[in-house]
Amino acid sequence: MSTRTFGEPIKRNEDRRLLTGQALFIDDLELPGMLHAALLRSQVAHARILKVDVSKALQRPGVVAAYAAGDLGDYWQPGPILVPPPPIEGTIFNARTQVPLAKDKVRHVGEPLAIVIAESRYIAEDALEDIELELEQLPAVVDLEKGLREGSALVHEDLGSNLSAHVRQTKGNYAAAAAKADHLIKRRFRYEHGISSPIETRGVVAQWDARANQMTIWDTTQAPVFVRNGLAGILGLNERQVRVIAPFVGGGFGPKIMMFYPEEVLLPWVSMKLNRPIKWIEDRLEHFFATTHERGQIHDAEIALSKDGRILGIRDVFLHDGGAYDPYGLTVPINSQCTLLGPYVVPNYDSTFTQVFTNLPIVTPYRGAGRQHGVFVMERLLDFAAHELNIDPAEIRRRNLIPPDAFPYNNGIIYQDFGVLEYDSGNYEPVLDLALDAIGYKTFRDEQAAARLQGRHLGIGVAAYVEGTGIGPYEGAKVQVQSNGKVSVATGIGTQGQGHFTVFAQIAADQLGVAVGDVDVVTGDTDQFYWGAGTFASRGAVVAGNAVNEASKVVRKKALKLASDLFECSEDDLVVENGRVSIVGIPEKFVKLGDLANRANPMRGAVQPGTEPGLESTQYFGPKMGATANGVHAMIVEMDPQTFDLKILKYVVVHDCGTVINPMILAGQIHGGVAQGIGNAFYEKLAFDDQGQLLNASLADYLLPTALEVPRMELAHTVTKSPLNPMGIKGAGEAGAIPGGPLFAQAIEDALDLKARGVELLEIPLSPSRLFELTRSAKG
Amino acid sequence: MSTRTFGEPIKRNEDRRLLTGQALFIDDLELPGMLHAALLRSQVAHARILKVDVSKALQRPGVVAAYAAGDLGDYWQPGPILVPPPPIEGTIFNARTQVPLAKDKVRHVGEPLAIVIAESRYIAEDALEDIELELEQLPAVVDLEKGLREGSALVHEDLGSNLSAHVRQTKGNYAAAAAKADHLIKRRFRYEHGISSPIETRGVVAQWDARANQMTIWDTTQAPVFVRNGLAGILGLNERQVRVIAPFVGGGFGPKIMMFYPEEVLLPWVSMKLNRPIKWIEDRLEHFFATTHERGQIHDAEIALSKDGRILGIRDVFLHDGGAYDPYGLTVPINSQCTLLGPYVVPNYDSTFTQVFTNLPIVTPYRGAGRQHGVFVMERLLDFAAHELNIDPAEIRRRNLIPPDAFPYNNGIIYQDFGVLEYDSGNYEPVLDLALDAIGYKTFRDEQAAARLQGRHLGIGVAAYVEGTGIGPYEGAKVQVQSNGKVSVATGIGTQGQGHFTVFAQIAADQLGVAVGDVDVVTGDTDQFYWGAGTFASRGAVVAGNAVNEASKVVRKKALKLASDLFECSEDDLVVENGRVSIVGIPEKFVKLGDLANRANPMRGAVQPGTEPGLESTQYFGPKMGATANGVHAMIVEMDPQTFDLKILKYVVVHDCGTVINPMILAGQIHGGVAQGIGNAFYEKLAFDDQGQLLNASLADYLLPTALEVPRMELAHTVTKSPLNPMGIKGAGEAGAIPGGPLFAQAIEDALDLKARGVELLEIPLSPSRLFELTRSAKG
Repeated sequence: MSTRTFGEPIKRNEDRRLLTGQALFIDDLELPGMLHAALLRSQVAHARILKVDVSKALQRPGVVAAYAAGDLGDYWQPGPILVPPPPIEGTIFNARTQVPLAKDKVRHVGEPLAIVIAESRYIAEDALEDIELELEQLPAVVDLEKGLREGSALVHEDLGSNLSAHVRQTKGNYAAAAAKADHLIKRRFRYEHGISSPIETRGVVAQWDARANQMTIWDTTQAPVFVRNGLAGILGLNERQVRVIAPFVGGGFGPKIMMFYPEEVLLPWVSMKLNRPIKWIEDRLEHFFATTHERGQIHDAEIALSKDGRILGIRDVFLHDGGAYDPYGLTVPINSQCTLLGPYVVPNYDSTFTQVFTNLPIVTPYRGAGRQHGVFVMERLLDFAAHELNIDPAEIRRRNLIPPDAFPYNNGIIYQDFGVLEYDSGNYEPVLDLALDAIGYKTFRDEQAAARLQGRHLGIGVAAYVEGTGIGPYEGAKVQVQSNGKVSVATGIGTQGQGHFTVFAQIAADQLGVAVGDVDVVTGDTDQFYWGAGTFASRGAVVAGNAVNEASKVVRKKALKLASDLFECSEDDLVVENGRVSIVGIPEKFVKLGDLANRANPMRGAVQPGTEPGLESTQYFGPKMGATANGVHAMIVEMDPQTFDLKILKYVVVHDCGTVINPMILAGQIHGGVAQGIGNAFYEKLAFDDQGQLLNASLADYLLPTALEVPRMELAHTVTKSPLNPMGIKGAGEAGAIPGGPLFAQAIEDALDLKARGVELLEIPLSPSRLFELTRSAKG
Repeated sequence: MSTRTFGEPIKRNEDRRLLTGQALFIDDLELPGMLHAALLRSQVAHARILKVDVSKALQRPGVVAAYAAGDLGDYWQPGPILVPPPPIEGTIFNARTQVPLAKDKVRHVGEPLAIVIAESRYIAEDALEDIELELEQLPAVVDLEKGLREGSALVHEDLGSNLSAHVRQTKGNYAAAAAKADHLIKRRFRYEHGISSPIETRGVVAQWDARANQMTIWDTTQAPVFVRNGLAGILGLNERQVRVIAPFVGGGFGPKIMMFYPEEVLLPWVSMKLNRPIKWIEDRLEHFFATTHERGQIHDAEIALSKDGRILGIRDVFLHDGGAYDPYGLTVPINSQCTLLGPYVVPNYDSTFTQVFTNLPIVTPYRGAGRQHGVFVMERLLDFAAHELNIDPAEIRRRNLIPPDAFPYNNGIIYQDFGVLEYDSGNYEPVLDLALDAIGYKTFRDEQAAARLQGRHLGIGVAAYVEGTGIGPYEGAKVQVQSNGKVSVATGIGTQGQGHFTVFAQIAADQLGVAVGDVDVVTGDTDQFYWGAGTFASRGAVVAGNAVNEASKVVRKKALKLASDLFECSEDDLVVENGRVSIVGIPEKFVKLGDLANRANPMRGAVQPGTEPGLESTQYFGPKMGATANGVHAMIVEMDPQTFDLKILKYVVVHDCGTVINPMILAGQIHGGVAQGIGNAFYEKLAFDDQGQLLNASLADYLLPTALEVPRMELAHTVTKSPLNPMGIKGAGEAGAIPGGPLFAQAIEDALDLKARGVELLEIPLSPSRLFELTRSAKG
């Protein structure tokens, strides 16, 4: 590979359009005759529906249509299971999926009961108040433990319990290991996550073209191809009749993979009924209820150790809050279960979880996708072990790291991608060393002591993790040299702001010897590229990136072949650079790539079956399994012991995601992830009451970290290439968000010397008020 | 091949949409913010432009923009040569192509001088009158012979003459053959053709999407891919940034291949300038000037014969009217030159033509594309030879037919597709026999005599022809089984109403064992299928049809492979029918095609480079050269000797276009072609005065044949498969229109016994008034 721009911090191709307001977001769409939708949402978490009558709403001027579940006919049906559970023996899974409009019961606050279509959103919203609604409120299931008890209210009465799923995975024999252990440390952990809060909320515009028999949907989805395929089935169309466009999406973070949200199936259906385009844009309040969350787990975990601090085994039993429906299967708790193991040798593992239906919004992956929960449990157990065994926290981690010669390292349990959890490659100790160096681990205790003399409370945290990234099934890419020499790349993966327009361009530019700015990437439009999966699971660069690379390699080969025919020379004597193919050492003997593209499309002379015109190729890439990235975050905080105000003095990320395509974009991914990790650990808390009402459903009350709360970070990378793909790439999208929880717990405990005060931080999120509660009864 | 529906007269898939008004034609498009264009066109055929000032037009309320050539900046440039001349030694070709808006001179009535963009077409049309225009009129070049004389006015002054092209092609040695001939017959022939007059005139809507950097053009073109590629270059975009949609097109017949019409390049340019969509629909008056014609040739032709009526050779020297510009190269006169040879053995041939620039609208192919002119010359020469040698006209044709064992038959000259004129296959005598039988040739003289006794004047005509069809370069098709079992076919060829949505469906349905109605065809949208050429030259079924067949065969193979894996049996034990693959003899053991499509898109398990997901295939087909169809038309007319009113009593078509996919659609093609052939022969005449003014530019004066003038036809087919493509197809789109001229001349001469009166019909079109002129001075 020539390496002009690959691996360099190239500025983003897409930023000109984004910064000049030329990027299309869903709400920018104005279509002739477009109508607007508003949804009547349940104000209570659990109720029997006695009556939904939209007839008065229909009388309001400007209202065009209104529907409740009874009006949907056959279209009232539970959606599909988006992700079936992996094939783990003994798994219990009770599938209960959401419906477009609730029919017999509502099961969480915000669940849609009716939809109004009007000439404007204002009219539609007003008309919601005209709908006659009678509900018989039922006790809400909110607490995971109570929800499983005999006599609890039932989210899905036909099930006879609130059990969504039950899974046990084991490796080795934990009981035997525990029996021989020198130390057994057991704790109960609670980990709560939050809502994704993208700058752009969800939105859908659906347009049925009766003339073309064609449905076009603009959708803020992370998985346009899945939406296309699923909608075709639901609407009774074939896939070619449905075009899904996920244009520029202002952040996704996972919840925008989910399907089908009620709006995604209702708007197309209404558009076909009315033969007019319909728009719905989620407002910020709706986002708290109408978009999926990640939320709580309760872990009862035990670690067995030898006296020198080696992990002999871990047993973990946890409850996972699935929310009211479980369309996303077991992805989140499986990720927690698998990611708990981290970068450590854990010879014996016994992990059982129970997914519980609650009367709360649906839980699906949000950046990290349950990995945080597992990492919190493991890292906290190691902290307590270090304390009990009197080993330095960094040292106990180092002793348990998987050694570099142990890869591929098979953990023997089943991962979210249906395959065995095997780490492809890694070299963990240098990552830890770099992080400790960068944070100043050796000198910190002196600094801490000196600060304490000045009345300042400093604390340090160090947390390690691995992240399964880059899972299949596959992505594809079409790479095409245009006759003006520009290169176009089309892929089906979509985008949510990660820089796909640049990194895919860098890959193609590198193979084809053109400027990155001369590579135009289109994605997220099922008419531009038909097949693919979507932008999630830190898989874009790995899976779509390698597809772009494979297609570009074929195009490069074609160009060399055409040029060698033209120059009557060997392909080995040719070089591809600066948009040309030239003879090595004779740069004036060249042909432009664009001219080769024209030669490849013979207007005189036949193109035969089995061949294709054009200087182009479509290739697919599907990895055998996911690639494993890893990292260590370290942080020094200063804590006010009275107000529990927290200031991050230093934040270090050392990360290994294999080959780096664009370090600036990678840094952006990590910065964003860390910001969300900080929010998760210390600021964002979904506060539900015991009737399932969210008490802080506004950005005034649900605190997102701002630029003031997010520190400058020091970033470093090691590169252990993945053997699973030719480019050696591992994913990097979620890593930044994963280790924030244990990092905060550790640093705060340290800053406030909580161990000495008998306080252990066993939960996330923390906050000044929670720290106040935890410490006010403590001895210190 | 299973033959459920292939070859059957299946009703057309597209007719439901067409008949219920759901088919999209350009003028149906209403886009938000759309503006309308009108063009100021020259009222004179030849003039120097002194002034075009649009400033007053801009002041009219509702006018948004107005441009003359001077406002176009670099955009004022002559268009490309659409079809370069074939590589014939000694060819002179002077390329002079049209410009978007005339700058220094206007060269034909109707040439655009300025464009006005307004909120409505009405306003735009009114504003044309505000434009200040000063022209210095020049003498017009209208007469082909005068145009070549020294001192003629010059259409392109820089050329120094009105010579557009000069080509000589020879086979054998005509002079030597003539020296030994028993008979030499020499005549001068004039053949005029007309305008295509589709039900839908031309139209363009251009929409620049600044957000997406994307140009979309809806265009009544027959060649959307060519337009996409060409426009990209002209607009400075790459091809992927331009989408051309040629939706349902209401007839094309050739002139809608032409590019670039001024409107096709102006509207996109203006749309980019104004960032608004623009519509222009050609009105019927404009169609007479703004759309290309086919027009005149003057042939001085001589045939050399042995005394038994064998053709020893032909010499032909002709002038061809190219109109004011020659973007289409030599296609029309080359077709005349090549098609003159017909189904006959012509050992020696010496053909020279001169293409002349005139101050008349541009000439490009129109159904038959110059073939008529050649067939007229040959068939008339044979008629006069039959008369002089006293051989029956049918018999002299029979004696000269190429025998069936002489194929492939090489005529040794170069054809329009750059290849040697070689007939792939044929069996001509049975075609002649069938036609003579069907018309009642043997008994006709008795009928004629009997009728004459009643004062009725009957005449008979028999004319034979071959048609080069199905030329390259290639077309492609993507065939895809949807998960609901329906099949979608996408191809780039476009359509102009020929039944592509049905015949391509039949081909795919046949391979895949599904109902024709379950195959959805899309074409004419460059985003749906990227590559291809267009729908012209009787090539759709041959080239795109075979691409569909090749792709369908691959899909069939994939389905068999998937099913054989599923059933663990040999592919030979499987049968594909009724939308299923089942085991032979065990029909209950089956899998639906749609389910196989889902299996072919593994969401778990990788898709590797070099493979592709989905039950689909994209394949291309390009024939080595064109396939040669042939036929004989025979007609009996009754003529009023006073009024020269003509009634067609019987019209027989016997035709061989190889494998027939759908005889009903084939019949439709022939019916339409014959109707246009009748119009060409007897009704349609473009009457220009000596200043290049068209005197009958309305459908009240330019007479299209109606249902009253077009008789019921008797059709019969023989099938000589083409060896050039796996399906054995030959094209059939133009044949019906080709032999009308000689057929009418022959039948009218016969009916009126003109030979006895010393009158020979040496020109087309004929008409009652022309027959009156020709006969009033005759002796009879």
